[in-house]
Amino acid sequence: MSAGLPEVDSALLQKRIQELSLLTEATPPVVTRVLFSDADLHGRDYLRRLCEDAGLSVRVDAVGNMFARWKGSAPDAPAVATGSHTDAIPNAGKFDGVVGVLGGLAAIEALQEAGFKPMRSIELVVFTAEEPTRFGIGCLGSRMLAGAIPLEKVRALRDAEGATLDDLRERAGLKAPLESVALPENFYSAFVELHIEQGPLLEREHIPIGIVQAIAGPSAYRVRITGEGGHAGAVLMRGRRDASLAASELALAVEQAALDSGSPDTVATTGKWEIFPNAINSVPCGATLEIDLRDITLETRDRALMLMRQASDSIASRRAVKIAWEEINADPPADGDPRTMGITEDVALKLDLASTRMVSRAYHDSLFMARICPTTMIFIPCRNGYSHRPEEYSDPAHIAAGARVLAGTLARLSYEPL
Amino acid sequence: MSAGLPEVDSALLQKRIQELSLLTEATPPVVTRVLFSDADLHGRDYLRRLCEDAGLSVRVDAVGNMFARWKGSAPDAPAVATGSHTDAIPNAGKFDGVVGVLGGLAAIEALQEAGFKPMRSIELVVFTAEEPTRFGIGCLGSRMLAGAIPLEKVRALRDAEGATLDDLRERAGLKAPLESVALPENFYSAFVELHIEQGPLLEREHIPIGIVQAIAGPSAYRVRITGEGGHAGAVLMRGRRDASLAASELALAVEQAALDSGSPDTVATTGKWEIFPNAINSVPCGATLEIDLRDITLETRDRALMLMRQASDSIASRRAVKIAWEEINADPPADGDPRTMGITEDVALKLDLASTRMVSRAYHDSLFMARICPTTMIFIPCRNGYSHRPEEYSDPAHIAAGARVLAGTLARLSYEPL
Repeated sequence: MSAGLPEVDSALLQKRIQELSLLTEATPPVVTRVLFSDADLHGRDYLRRLCEDAGLSVRVDAVGNMFARWKGSAPDAPAVATGSHTDAIPNAGKFDGVVGVLGGLAAIEALQEAGFKPMRSIELVVFTAEEPTRFGIGCLGSRMLAGAIPLEKVRALRDAEGATLDDLRERAGLKAPLESVALPENFYSAFVELHIEQGPLLEREHIPIGIVQAIAGPSAYRVRITGEGGHAGAVLMRGRRDASLAASELALAVEQAALDSGSPDTVATTGKWEIFPNAINSVPCGATLEIDLRDITLETRDRALMLMRQASDSIASRRAVKIAWEEINADPPADGDPRTMGITEDVALKLDLASTRMVSRAYHDSLFMARICPTTMIFIPCRNGYSHRPEEYSDPAHIAAGARVLAGTLARLSYEPL
Repeated sequence: MSAGLPEVDSALLQKRIQELSLLTEATPPVVTRVLFSDADLHGRDYLRRLCEDAGLSVRVDAVGNMFARWKGSAPDAPAVATGSHTDAIPNAGKFDGVVGVLGGLAAIEALQEAGFKPMRSIELVVFTAEEPTRFGIGCLGSRMLAGAIPLEKVRALRDAEGATLDDLRERAGLKAPLESVALPENFYSAFVELHIEQGPLLEREHIPIGIVQAIAGPSAYRVRITGEGGHAGAVLMRGRRDASLAASELALAVEQAALDSGSPDTVATTGKWEIFPNAINSVPCGATLEIDLRDITLETRDRALMLMRQASDSIASRRAVKIAWEEINADPPADGDPRTMGITEDVALKLDLASTRMVSRAYHDSLFMARICPTTMIFIPCRNGYSHRPEEYSDPAHIAAGARVLAGTLARLSYEPL
């Protein structure tokens, strides 16, 4: 069936990935595209134009999630969705998220080109702020779509400059109330996200397609340490309550807790640091650390957290500093939908592409989409497993193969019985 | 002799300290006045006006050092100088440096009021950038006056935004060449700096006047750590080369080295941190630490540095990161001039103020003035030894007493034989 196994225009897809990578706050090839920055807004304009050129009807919700719909012959039936994000952390690469958005569009265009006529509508979703850079919380868009975050928590979010989401929505021209974001029940019949693996396994095993059967549960904490400042020359060592040294001990304890959790899948990272007042000749009186902790089972994740909290108490007491923990989010892991995984596997087989079931250690918008509809992800290899850095790279042939498997999967899902 | 023991207008001095504290980049009472910021430029205007109102003739050199001269009857003889700085680190208080500048002016005005006629001219100096906030190097103004820094090193300085000193001088309207800053030989016959102690000793002992017989030698280092970045979810713990964890270990080793130097006077601080890319879900690939190390003897300071460098090598090897050390400055300690200290002591005695000889652990512009003329400092108590923080406080009576001792000292030094 030509419509089931359409060809993807790989050259065009590569051209678009390159074009989007130039919309960055950094110097290309480095990509930095933080939520509602100029680069992010330009990226959104670029995508909207591509979707409209493909004849899709575009809607943007109150938080900036973009939906581009190819209407099917059963337009009132729950639609089949694909998509990902285009925001990027500071100093990132071109492929994280982007492959799922531009690859999703390429899959739809391939189906159009092949003369396919959808029954269920097929919708491309570009999620707002999958990355937590601006507000410290990941998957803001998909989290809100799934109704997985109370609106009072959303309204309490502040970025580093103290701006609220509403402040930024205004700048982006988004006026609808936040209440309108959560999707009604049975809005989608299935969701499939194409993404680079962000890990080394597919490349190492020479397998072009990974089918995600579980997504690790992420959690994030903000820890504020209050010590005592003073002149770096005048305050003798014995009397100090240096917040940056307490932070140093805590960061090392976070690492140790992940190593001691009992599972090799536990990962914990102290990626964000603020030291106050941050002057060379001043003993730091304050430090804020943001900690990212994830695991594919809650049991070992909870154990790692307990070890961190115990270490934190001991550091606070020994160094006579105050350490206050705030949970930013703590989300359970998600499982892939067996039926959807089976369809994807079957399409890969028909395309003569080897596939394997695997776990996603990174979180994705799929983590929240899995709460409202059957979900899976298609992973493709990326070089050395590099991600969240400029060296991130995925082979054009692997990207095209992933988009092709996605196209076949969307076609099959579009004709799932009503 | 009324001219030798004049009264200082304490109320006016307090009013000026308060007024200057309102020229800040922060919210009062917090003072932040970084070199050539708007607050610093406004502070300079404020001081120039006060000096001109006092009938002093004002000159500003190419790096922004301000000189306000009260011409003596022997105008060609080396002058007697006093002064300090008014720049302030982020989140600082009202008194550090300011007491020496406004107290120095109050001393001159007290002598004028008392009808004193100077023989050697008396000059108030307001030094540029005693604090290292902007360029990472302290005492930039006095260092250049003393010819203690090569101009190629000055020209290589860059602030956090990449601006050079010349860029900032242009903004401040300073056009003369940097070659013109270094003072000719025998420009001053003596220099006496009034300053808050920034330590707890005078307060604890109830002694109003400290006479500085030695200033600890400061040194500063910039350490760049290069590890490997990656996605905080995807990179397993065992394979990480996290630069922030290497930085944590190094900061703790810096503390330990100071504790193990063999001297309780060794102090080492890791006050400034930059983590890259500094995003919660990204393993840090880079970290820059700025380390402040000082001591009153070079031997124990060198030993502490050696311990730090050994720890650094071991961390680099164990964590497979690159650690590059750069010396920002490494200045020898300075001794107070015995004759000048004796005069100050004698004036305090005549004013019935107890005094004690002491060591300055903080560095001061006097560290560099001591290289070009006989120098000492007058310390006054400050509450709890607090400095470089908003709680910094010195009693008005102590400030006035310090200015009074300074006035008497300047008067005596002005009549030192030609």
